[in-house]
Amino acid sequence: MAAYLHLHGHPRVQNLSLSNPSRPYSLCYSPPMTIKMSQDQSYWSSINADIEAHLKQAIPIRPPLSVFEPMHHLTFSAPRNTAPALCIAACELVGGHRDEAMAAASALHLMHAATFAHENLPLTDRPSFRPTINHSFKPNIELLVPDGMVPFGFELLAKSDDPANNNSDRVLKVIVEIARAMGSNGVVEGLYKETLVGQSDGEELSDVSIGGWMRHTCKKKEGELNACGAILGGASEVEIVKLRKYGLYVGMRQGYLNRNASNEKELQKVVAELRNLALIELQHFKGHKVEAISSFINGVL
Amino acid sequence: MAAYLHLHGHPRVQNLSLSNPSRPYSLCYSPPMTIKMSQDQSYWSSINADIEAHLKQAIPIRPPLSVFEPMHHLTFSAPRNTAPALCIAACELVGGHRDEAMAAASALHLMHAATFAHENLPLTDRPSFRPTINHSFKPNIELLVPDGMVPFGFELLAKSDDPANNNSDRVLKVIVEIARAMGSNGVVEGLYKETLVGQSDGEELSDVSIGGWMRHTCKKKEGELNACGAILGGASEVEIVKLRKYGLYVGMRQGYLNRNASNEKELQKVVAELRNLALIELQHFKGHKVEAISSFINGVL
Repeated sequence: MAAYLHLHGHPRVQNLSLSNPSRPYSLCYSPPMTIKMSQDQSYWSSINADIEAHLKQAIPIRPPLSVFEPMHHLTFSAPRNTAPALCIAACELVGGHRDEAMAAASALHLMHAATFAHENLPLTDRPSFRPTINHSFKPNIELLVPDGMVPFGFELLAKSDDPANNNSDRVLKVIVEIARAMGSNGVVEGLYKETLVGQSDGEELSDVSIGGWMRHTCKKKEGELNACGAILGGASEVEIVKLRKYGLYVGMRQGYLNRNASNEKELQKVVAELRNLALIELQHFKGHKVEAISSFINGVL
Repeated sequence: MAAYLHLHGHPRVQNLSLSNPSRPYSLCYSPPMTIKMSQDQSYWSSINADIEAHLKQAIPIRPPLSVFEPMHHLTFSAPRNTAPALCIAACELVGGHRDEAMAAASALHLMHAATFAHENLPLTDRPSFRPTINHSFKPNIELLVPDGMVPFGFELLAKSDDPANNNSDRVLKVIVEIARAMGSNGVVEGLYKETLVGQSDGEELSDVSIGGWMRHTCKKKEGELNACGAILGGASEVEIVKLRKYGLYVGMRQGYLNRNASNEKELQKVVAELRNLALIELQHFKGHKVEAISSFINGVL
């Protein structure tokens, strides 16, 4: 987060400004241009608290304890990413109810947590740059338990189908969306590219890397998981496309901020550009929820 | 297969007898009591050829080659299990069309192949009894690529929804069924139990093991993946329950046959018992497809 904080100050106390000096544009909704971050903070806090409560109910610690205790731990110890909260916010933005996106948001966190565990699994051919985390369990458990978490995420999603609401088609669409984002052309590809970079001796995260492998990895690992809330909230095709792009830019931006780059100036430029691109996608939407969702790109999470 | 061959002779040349001396019962359909195994063989061959063709079309070798080549290899080099073919046979037994169960059958093989790769991943705390396979790729690839194969299986399933057929509810039911069977209370639990046995020094696969951990592992690893074809073929609830049980016994039986047990007599007894239990579940069904599906428990696959 160093680069971000250097640019904008601490997100908890700053004001949110939607104006952008380097790429001016007008927003078609008319919010107060400066809103208190504390309001947004409470919005995201309430979303995250609801997701956590939903997951805690979905993953009781029950037999076999040898499987469910690690599952509980790996789920709740993984760092958050942007996808679950953005899923809820997008659903609410288009007029959907939070409950409609709760299973998807929970599934997104489960799958992210599973990926995080496998990403940090010690393997003989893993590059040395990989961050060291505290491993609470032996490798066999940290391999197998996430293998159960991913199907469980899909189970939560498929069970959220409510025949009374006639939402089967939306749920199936979201399953396809999440499966693609998680799969061989999505997160797995991003992880693989990142591993390759770690294996090439001495390659630095230079300007070229920021535009090249890093952009690609941020897109695949962090960017493409963020579109499902709009579908569940009943968005139109145009709205889905716009919120998919918004999610892409938000996720990529977060991906850059989570990494260290040798050229901080270049990094800051890319991060600012992604923020602008993200805000442009929101111009289509109206209402007070726009302010809330736009605060994502000011680092509230 | 040693125990099985010892009991019944080579499955390709033997005759199929539905009678059972140790637990007599009558079948409510009236097939010829002895049918040529070659007929069944061609039934299973055609099913397996169709599944393979569907998977080959679904997994073209395309960029990124570094991900899709291993995915192709891991998918087609994994040994077959009973679930995919049984999925198709159950669908056809209840009057469904093969195409209705093809995505599910393909997904089942993909997930089985992913599990097989992770099961054989070299880890520092893996027990020494684990069978050595030829690893075509480095551990990082054999970890990551299966992580993409499981979501891809769910994607195939979710995309098989056909609004014209109004089958969304069936597809969602099958996603729940497969997710549960693959997850923390299913295959993952079975794998974990098997690992535990490997870790306890000197524990033998004795009579107690055959009834205890081995039964549990066969149930979880091989037994519970076999119910989805009936749902997709439009079976009634009663039919689904019966075919779920049939699949459970068939899968468990195959699980026992795939393992070595120190007490072969006990193993043969359990295998024969599971065959009887499986055949009882088929008494409910009528028509020539019953003969075909019953040949599963005579080791055609």
